Amino acid sequence: MSKKLTKRAEDYSKWYNELVVKADLAENSAVRGCMVIKPYGYAIWEKMQAELDRMFKETGHENAYFPLFVPKSLFEAEEKNAEGFAKECAVVTHYRLQNDPDRPGKLRVDPEAKLEEELVVRPTSEAIIWNTYKGWIQSYRDLPLLINQWANVVRWEMRTRLFLRTAEFLWQEGHTAHATKSEAVTESRQMQDVYATFAENFMAMPVIKGVKSDSERFAGAEDTYTIEALMQDGKALQAGTSHFLGQNFAKAFDVKFTSKEGKQEYVWATSWGVSTRLIGGLIMTHSDDLGLVLPPKLAPIQVAIVPIYKGEDQLEAISKKVNVIVKELREKGISVKFDTRDTFRPGAKFAEYELKGVPVRIAIGNRDLENNTVEVARRDTLEKQTYSQDNVVEVVANLLEEIQENLFKKAIDFRAAHTTEVTTFDEFKDAIENKGGFVSAHWDGTEATEDKIKELTKATIRCIPNDAKEELGVCVFTGKPSSKRVFFAKAY
Amino acid sequence: MSKKLTKRAEDYSKWYNELVVKADLAENSAVRGCMVIKPYGYAIWEKMQAELDRMFKETGHENAYFPLFVPKSLFEAEEKNAEGFAKECAVVTHYRLQNDPDRPGKLRVDPEAKLEEELVVRPTSEAIIWNTYKGWIQSYRDLPLLINQWANVVRWEMRTRLFLRTAEFLWQEGHTAHATKSEAVTESRQMQDVYATFAENFMAMPVIKGVKSDSERFAGAEDTYTIEALMQDGKALQAGTSHFLGQNFAKAFDVKFTSKEGKQEYVWATSWGVSTRLIGGLIMTHSDDLGLVLPPKLAPIQVAIVPIYKGEDQLEAISKKVNVIVKELREKGISVKFDTRDTFRPGAKFAEYELKGVPVRIAIGNRDLENNTVEVARRDTLEKQTYSQDNVVEVVANLLEEIQENLFKKAIDFRAAHTTEVTTFDEFKDAIENKGGFVSAHWDGTEATEDKIKELTKATIRCIPNDAKEELGVCVFTGKPSSKRVFFAKAY
Repeated sequence: MSKKLTKRAEDYSKWYNELVVKADLAENSAVRGCMVIKPYGYAIWEKMQAELDRMFKETGHENAYFPLFVPKSLFEAEEKNAEGFAKECAVVTHYRLQNDPDRPGKLRVDPEAKLEEELVVRPTSEAIIWNTYKGWIQSYRDLPLLINQWANVVRWEMRTRLFLRTAEFLWQEGHTAHATKSEAVTESRQMQDVYATFAENFMAMPVIKGVKSDSERFAGAEDTYTIEALMQDGKALQAGTSHFLGQNFAKAFDVKFTSKEGKQEYVWATSWGVSTRLIGGLIMTHSDDLGLVLPPKLAPIQVAIVPIYKGEDQLEAISKKVNVIVKELREKGISVKFDTRDTFRPGAKFAEYELKGVPVRIAIGNRDLENNTVEVARRDTLEKQTYSQDNVVEVVANLLEEIQENLFKKAIDFRAAHTTEVTTFDEFKDAIENKGGFVSAHWDGTEATEDKIKELTKATIRCIPNDAKEELGVCVFTGKPSSKRVFFAKAY
Repeated sequence: MSKKLTKRAEDYSKWYNELVVKADLAENSAVRGCMVIKPYGYAIWEKMQAELDRMFKETGHENAYFPLFVPKSLFEAEEKNAEGFAKECAVVTHYRLQNDPDRPGKLRVDPEAKLEEELVVRPTSEAIIWNTYKGWIQSYRDLPLLINQWANVVRWEMRTRLFLRTAEFLWQEGHTAHATKSEAVTESRQMQDVYATFAENFMAMPVIKGVKSDSERFAGAEDTYTIEALMQDGKALQAGTSHFLGQNFAKAFDVKFTSKEGKQEYVWATSWGVSTRLIGGLIMTHSDDLGLVLPPKLAPIQVAIVPIYKGEDQLEAISKKVNVIVKELREKGISVKFDTRDTFRPGAKFAEYELKGVPVRIAIGNRDLENNTVEVARRDTLEKQTYSQDNVVEVVANLLEEIQENLFKKAIDFRAAHTTEVTTFDEFKDAIENKGGFVSAHWDGTEATEDKIKELTKATIRCIPNDAKEELGVCVFTGKPSSKRVFFAKAY
């Protein structure tokens, strides 16, 4: 495989696919649509998990684990949810293999080991979880129930792409139960905020918070709150969703509680999730034609140090200096790799860390030893500068913060430059087709108009922004009255 | 459900099943053999994961993630492994449900959505991983490959018990690739040591390290290294295994590397795993007729503080004192719950923390305020003592260490009292039937003898201990010569 990446301007999609593989993040597996997440990619996921998990716990949630399988009778209990996922679910029908009498050394399904009831591999866990909650909730004292699960789920997607859309993916799914509607709505909006904070503060990926239109809502939800990010090719990415589920699942699974007033009432529900898709969003927000660009807060290696030397003596002298720097950086909680491999030249190492998006690279050679200096290169701007060894630790610590901020600012600027307010449908089409990005437009609120616009432009309503101002206008397509602008975009 | 536990002496198995449910650790689900791990049980698993993950990383391993599904053709590639797991695997045959024309509102498998090749839900991941490693390993420079995965696996067991044997369970599986046999053997023994260290230092559960006999070896392994613990009912529990896989998987998946000398050679492999079964072992090692007893290092709540008060004023005065203690304990990294719920009386809270195995309970009432004291109760010995508030933080910190040590010592003593060296088969039977525990006996090394002993006594060879001394003797059953004692026991 050539080391050279396709350029984004040439073929963005190809650039992405190549980058994921070349940067050692993930690869396709022998199972259609399922990926292997390689150690470097998984290390990013671990960093994401750690921060999200902390945020969930800080907002009062506990982790638990529910079965991978959903018996068909439970799966079909909440009709809209079932309808939404039935078309793309993996189904276990048998529990044994046996030797194939026709093909020696091969196995076949044992026809006598057919399950009485088929098991669906969870595409999402509302059904199995609400069936469980029925046993956990009797009284208002049992509420709220604030639970999260880290798990794998399977959706049999026909067109898959590494991280963005895979048949199996890793995610977290929060499932909460509440005594009142308003508490459940508050919870679902709180988790939207948590996701937005994570996206912006850790991924350096600005997002628009909004609510989905009817047609884009989660199957079985009353309202779906979303965070929408903008990728460098002008397409939007739904990065996380939080659903207010009303009493739909409580009714489907007959989950009632005795209120303080002694009445039997159905429980109110939310669910919310983000997945390994976030890694796709991270890549497409910041990376460039040379490779990955990772925000320092999620980079598995924040600083790579490359010695430039001839012979063991020089390496030893350099190592002596570097080991002190490494120790001090680690004491500040900075992850450092001192790359002393003798199987690669410095140039190859530079290219590797560029490809892998390591935020800061330090080079140190013989002349640096003489001058008490190091060369510090930042991945985001590719700038290099020489610093004294005496304050390199402080320089690097500050630089990591600066890079984090710079990446966010750059992404904010990109989004601002690719968000267009339009009044006419010609302007709408022009913005979607020629400029890309978000298009803010009035819409008459009907699904028919939404469908028609999608048919003509491939753009969908990404969300009705939380902070949309009341503004009298007319629908960009039908001319009917509208009171709010919504965000359209082509999307992943 | 009655709050009272069945006593261990009455019915150990019933005691275990009740305890798991009453202490809110786990429960059975709607899916045959699959469990729901409740937040309190999952919190123990998270603590176990954190320590193990740290130990794996300290020994050079990285995490990654491989697909849940194994195509049948890969599953069957390594014959012994396939044979070992074929009888108990869940098989996905279809990828879609549709409306059932015969039963309105119900779903059925769509007969047109049959997979070309069936997918096995991983019972273990050697096959899918070695098929992937084929693409990752070309040269000795790519070795060793030291990878771990945290995942769920499915084995369609017919008789299941919460944590100990479930159809789906959570585990970690390490899969490493090496250039030489000796390096692979060293790795597999190193991981056995890591498991033993974890079991003893964190779970306070003493284990015997040994190697499995041929008949108890992992399907596809050359050698299986095990850690074996002893439960309070005298039965052994296989708590973790590490396998030297030889070149079996490399040959099955054609994974070769170019050695330093330029030769093409098959790669050497290991795999190793521990699972949520450890929670079962933890429970059965320490708990008593009042409920769980948790070693402080794995207890989700290490200290519970119960205020004893009448009216808001007293609670406020107590809280003022307690909040200082809580803060200081947390600064020492101790997890504390200050239980101010007014829906439960102190007695009910005491019983709850006893049932849930919280290592230290502090009670503080009005008289304690006057005397500047608190009452400290330890869960392991049930002793209570009054201390000055001034040094309670230090007392508790020391007490947690003492409890951890005491639990380990108690378990060591129990094991010593339930390990019997025997010479004759009458002694053997007597020890297995009447005393339980490990029986150390000479064995002629044949599977036939092992089978016969199992048939007669239900005892199996748990392991040939790593530290077995060379000792001339005769097989306890056949009288044939033997050079080492091995450990027998009835086992979970």
